[in-house]
Amino acid sequence: MPADQLAERLTALRADYEDLQAKGLELDLTRGKPGADQLDLSEGLLSLPTGHRDRSGADVRNYGGLEGLTEIREVFADLLGVDTAQVVAGGNSSLTMMYQVVTWLLLHGAPDSPRPWSQEEKVTFVCPVPGYDRHFTMLAELGIDMVTVPMHDDGPDVPAVRALVADDPSVKGMWLVPTYANPTGAVCSTEVAADLMAMPTAAPDFRILWDNAYVVHHLTDVETKSADALGLASASGHPNRPIMFASTSKITFAGAGVAALAASPENKAWYLKRLSYAAIGPDKVNQLRHVEFFGDADGVRAHMRKHRDLIAPKFAAVQEALSARLDGLGVATWSQPVGGYFVDLNVMDGTAARVVQLAKEAGIALTPAGSAFPYGNDPDDRNIRLAPTFPALAEVEAAMAGVAVCVELAAVEKLTAPVVE
Amino acid sequence: MPADQLAERLTALRADYEDLQAKGLELDLTRGKPGADQLDLSEGLLSLPTGHRDRSGADVRNYGGLEGLTEIREVFADLLGVDTAQVVAGGNSSLTMMYQVVTWLLLHGAPDSPRPWSQEEKVTFVCPVPGYDRHFTMLAELGIDMVTVPMHDDGPDVPAVRALVADDPSVKGMWLVPTYANPTGAVCSTEVAADLMAMPTAAPDFRILWDNAYVVHHLTDVETKSADALGLASASGHPNRPIMFASTSKITFAGAGVAALAASPENKAWYLKRLSYAAIGPDKVNQLRHVEFFGDADGVRAHMRKHRDLIAPKFAAVQEALSARLDGLGVATWSQPVGGYFVDLNVMDGTAARVVQLAKEAGIALTPAGSAFPYGNDPDDRNIRLAPTFPALAEVEAAMAGVAVCVELAAVEKLTAPVVE
Repeated sequence: MPADQLAERLTALRADYEDLQAKGLELDLTRGKPGADQLDLSEGLLSLPTGHRDRSGADVRNYGGLEGLTEIREVFADLLGVDTAQVVAGGNSSLTMMYQVVTWLLLHGAPDSPRPWSQEEKVTFVCPVPGYDRHFTMLAELGIDMVTVPMHDDGPDVPAVRALVADDPSVKGMWLVPTYANPTGAVCSTEVAADLMAMPTAAPDFRILWDNAYVVHHLTDVETKSADALGLASASGHPNRPIMFASTSKITFAGAGVAALAASPENKAWYLKRLSYAAIGPDKVNQLRHVEFFGDADGVRAHMRKHRDLIAPKFAAVQEALSARLDGLGVATWSQPVGGYFVDLNVMDGTAARVVQLAKEAGIALTPAGSAFPYGNDPDDRNIRLAPTFPALAEVEAAMAGVAVCVELAAVEKLTAPVVE
Repeated sequence: MPADQLAERLTALRADYEDLQAKGLELDLTRGKPGADQLDLSEGLLSLPTGHRDRSGADVRNYGGLEGLTEIREVFADLLGVDTAQVVAGGNSSLTMMYQVVTWLLLHGAPDSPRPWSQEEKVTFVCPVPGYDRHFTMLAELGIDMVTVPMHDDGPDVPAVRALVADDPSVKGMWLVPTYANPTGAVCSTEVAADLMAMPTAAPDFRILWDNAYVVHHLTDVETKSADALGLASASGHPNRPIMFASTSKITFAGAGVAALAASPENKAWYLKRLSYAAIGPDKVNQLRHVEFFGDADGVRAHMRKHRDLIAPKFAAVQEALSARLDGLGVATWSQPVGGYFVDLNVMDGTAARVVQLAKEAGIALTPAGSAFPYGNDPDDRNIRLAPTFPALAEVEAAMAGVAVCVELAAVEKLTAPVVE
């Protein structure tokens, strides 16, 4: 576009932006939180359980039962495609279980570690980007270094991962959200998963923290199955490599659900042993509450279809708003996820922070630019995570129309800015 | 008693013991677990909450609210005698909160630490004995050394504590169950608490983990108030010294209650900052459930009187059974607690392990001898913790009559054993 047309466009966009600001919006697309209508789907939980004994006859109201109720472990096993014996059902947060695992690796090391990780000179994690901000801030808090690899539509870039892990024994771990990844929506293929589980690593105690937070969070009627991480790892001689996490946080109540971990027998025994010093048992009443509510894994799947019906229109609204203004302009690309909680927006390089600022000043809160990268550092300043589930549909429409204005305005601002010599 | 009388007594006791074994008992006095009738008192929780918003209007079913609902924090503040601003309400386990604090001291250090505790050559905790086994096993798991001081009726032996902390900067912490201590039932006086909070310590970051697990667990109508640890510490210029813990585990459901921590503003901010990397928020639905169930702190107090009515007879049965057989024999002493969950039995030196073995072989499970000491090491082999709340009253009577036989038998066995030169 010639300079005079760009200048005209800038004037028009500034007018659009003023109109946007004049609306006095107060909208929030920052976090992957369920909407109130989604939470209402689980209202039945509030008058459960009706009983207080589990299948074994144990009183769920009392202490004990560190690995969780067998019946809720069965539900998780079915959903995750693992054996019940591999599952620990815990408290209300899979993030907490991940944090436990990482801190125990630091304080004690894994069963196959030469020493506690905290006694290594350096510990490094491979982080596919863009990724989940809480994964990265946790590692930064714990003094673990991070190196990034690109996340593709079928999972992390395997050659890049291989190159990082092959020779450097300080590279001891890797994050992965395998299904409907946060934020790209990518689904790790069986081929990629098999490569990751089989690849040689310099560290004998390499771990892949397989955060299957969105395992049943389909946005279409194609209900993608996650790769069989534990089976693939076992088949390739690295049974201890993956540790799997999931929860019902975005199934029932975010914050009052049940989390789970699944792993090899050795990893599971290691986890439970450490846990035995930190806890007497999980909230088994809440576990039984969930078992009574769902019945079985198919009950969960049926429930997830009700979530899909509520949130798929919001994801469609994001696509429509972005397409309506930005299609063909060449200033942005975005994901078209078939599951999960996010749309991943890539704006013109060097404008993501400006887009977030413009949106903020128009009353639309977006996740800070860069937050999907370790240390908050998006080297291209182009990535923005959109979370459309929490606001009402009309709010998503209004917010995304506004975001589209901000994306184009920031791009044209950049293109028309005087070049600094 | 002359040797021939002792031999006669041994024969009689062996007959009593055979009778005991013939009863085929299967009784368990090992853990401080509420009985089913106590859990029934909280059955109303299972159909709560009726609402899903807290006082601030936040939807308790969704993410967030790391420090817990204000209204449950108010209840804990009232019960613990602290300000609401000092309280964090957490998940289902105060043990987990203690474990978090200790691991974060190791990994990060306290606000007033020169460095993370894991970077010290040695870290030592002062452990009043007998004490709570899980306190000690936690420290052993985490590589923290333990030194013991005697527990008196008014709290830990202050001169002994002073001597340990005054000059050795590796002595960085201390456990204390201030009210109705596990297992002795001792109540830490205000004088002792004031001394502990004011005493000079070589470590600038000395912490007293004030585990007020039994703060409202009175066995009589004298409802003893705990010493004001936070106030005393603040007044003596050591506001960060104590960190207080409590939970509703033995108030509502053990395992499905709400735990809390209370501390100075600096400690609390430190705890919440660390916690923010490990969790998004506590189970606020369960917190609101508890708020609706109790109303306020007086609701908790009224509820505890119902517990008292159920368990005081069991404690009386322990006293009766021990007195009936052992009064005047000089082979055992035991506590007469006015609160808490335990009776502390001291048998003849060198016979505790034998008593536990005899009881086991008669179908009565007791906590392993020595478990109230660090590393399970009771130097006098005389201490046994009795937990009478979980079995039914008739079972407590039967079990304790049996325990009394075992205590006397072990003593007479010892007195009549050939002396090994």
